[in-house]
Amino acid sequence: MLYLIGLGLSDVSDITVRGLDTVRKCKRVYLEAYTSILMAADQESLEKYYGREVILADRELVEGGSDDILAGAQTDDIAFLVVGDPLGATTHTDLILRARELNIPYNIIHNASVMNAVGACGLQLYNFGQTVSLVFFTDSWKPESFYDKVLENRQLGLHTLLLLDIKVKEQSIENMARGRLIYEPPRYMSIATAAQQMLEIEESRKEGAYGPETPCIGVSRLGAPTQAFRADTLEQLAEYDAGEPLHSLIILGNRVHDLETDFIAAFAPDQERLRKAIKDDAQNFKKPEPPIVNMYDD
Amino acid sequence: MLYLIGLGLSDVSDITVRGLDTVRKCKRVYLEAYTSILMAADQESLEKYYGREVILADRELVEGGSDDILAGAQTDDIAFLVVGDPLGATTHTDLILRARELNIPYNIIHNASVMNAVGACGLQLYNFGQTVSLVFFTDSWKPESFYDKVLENRQLGLHTLLLLDIKVKEQSIENMARGRLIYEPPRYMSIATAAQQMLEIEESRKEGAYGPETPCIGVSRLGAPTQAFRADTLEQLAEYDAGEPLHSLIILGNRVHDLETDFIAAFAPDQERLRKAIKDDAQNFKKPEPPIVNMYDD
Repeated sequence: MLYLIGLGLSDVSDITVRGLDTVRKCKRVYLEAYTSILMAADQESLEKYYGREVILADRELVEGGSDDILAGAQTDDIAFLVVGDPLGATTHTDLILRARELNIPYNIIHNASVMNAVGACGLQLYNFGQTVSLVFFTDSWKPESFYDKVLENRQLGLHTLLLLDIKVKEQSIENMARGRLIYEPPRYMSIATAAQQMLEIEESRKEGAYGPETPCIGVSRLGAPTQAFRADTLEQLAEYDAGEPLHSLIILGNRVHDLETDFIAAFAPDQERLRKAIKDDAQNFKKPEPPIVNMYDD
Repeated sequence: MLYLIGLGLSDVSDITVRGLDTVRKCKRVYLEAYTSILMAADQESLEKYYGREVILADRELVEGGSDDILAGAQTDDIAFLVVGDPLGATTHTDLILRARELNIPYNIIHNASVMNAVGACGLQLYNFGQTVSLVFFTDSWKPESFYDKVLENRQLGLHTLLLLDIKVKEQSIENMARGRLIYEPPRYMSIATAAQQMLEIEESRKEGAYGPETPCIGVSRLGAPTQAFRADTLEQLAEYDAGEPLHSLIILGNRVHDLETDFIAAFAPDQERLRKAIKDDAQNFKKPEPPIVNMYDD
């Protein structure tokens, strides 16, 4: 049996009781270690907590060598641990499809992921549109497909959760060209970088998906004891130092419920600025008024 | 301290280790018992598992008498247990706002909820639009606001998760009129009822948000050992007996990724019918072609 087990967001003890019992009975335990990190735990602390060896699974092992992971899983129990939920932000459907081909049964043990735990900021999950990824820009590569998706959500009045890029075990172009297996230090996109990149694209696109005054929430270390929310305009968040990773960013929709506003106001360094930004933003994306018809005119 | 603790979806052991440790040290433990149910556990089994008394909190207690729940929480630890995640499908921000007013600190212990665990069906969470609720129709009350939201999602090619109505501790109109505190047996909307109601509204609206041939996934008992997915057309699901609650329904968007199709095909009673429905549906919501301009014509 292949068990895909969500670890939740931060601490070793964020695993479910059922998940922990399952890990402890598995023959081999893999940890997916390239799309996210468990903020308050590392391989060593997990091994100690589980009392089992934990094998780090990087992208090559999962995408290229998944048969190594699945070896013997027709009869043995194998655990594949994923930060958050196994089918949350990053899905591992390809691993499951491969297991199916090999007639290996699988079982998913769910957990919280950023996709639902973000409700902790006080915005209703119902009022979110599609979730969007934002990758690190380079001088020559500034993918802006996120812009259209944010615009689609904003036109419907919906909030947008932006998941920010994580670069783990990446090679520099020079090292890659020379075939040197030297990896750069991991990089995690900050709220400030995300906000700056977004403003840069709005400046070139000028379609008004959002602007410097758009109300947003910076989310840092969601689910960890040091978790923080910061409710402010996009422009202000572009200057905000949120500290240690992981970060996410929420662009508010323009039909914020009063209960949402009251809740997030506690996360604003300047409540008045936030409330004004929300109020002003409500004027955007108005549908044109129907023409006035004079009923007495014919 | 007020602890809002997610219980996950099905079994007593779906609570996180941190959640369980917290429950066991709390002075009073409340279970929110009116918006969802833990499928494989009841009050008694929870009490046995925790070794603590569990107080059922119905809507009146939470919305009207939250100060009873919060009494003493400035100094004592109080647990408020919620099926799924405390801020998932049903948010308890009002309880947190009240705690803030009373200067009671709070802490959220997250868990899986239907909003993220639904990824188990193989559709990418990124490709979902806003989540929608569907309530039981009566002869005189058929709220159709869900229709506009499904249409908005479908126009963007996005999937829609429909959360289906749960009626717990409801009075009949007659008993309410006579002031008799007699409650109807709990009712949980089935996939078939949801599909029938949706088809009824499309028949009257005729705006083509979806139709009998639209591909959908029926989700039953998500996260439980008897969990099942059924991928078929809406019309077929209107006849589908999915068994015990809880059920949800997903209306597919019309830009289904090949990997998604391959994954959900395993849940189809008729793979050919499903693949045809997905292929045909891709023709809907096409933007009009731009007019052909003859460059040699002036």
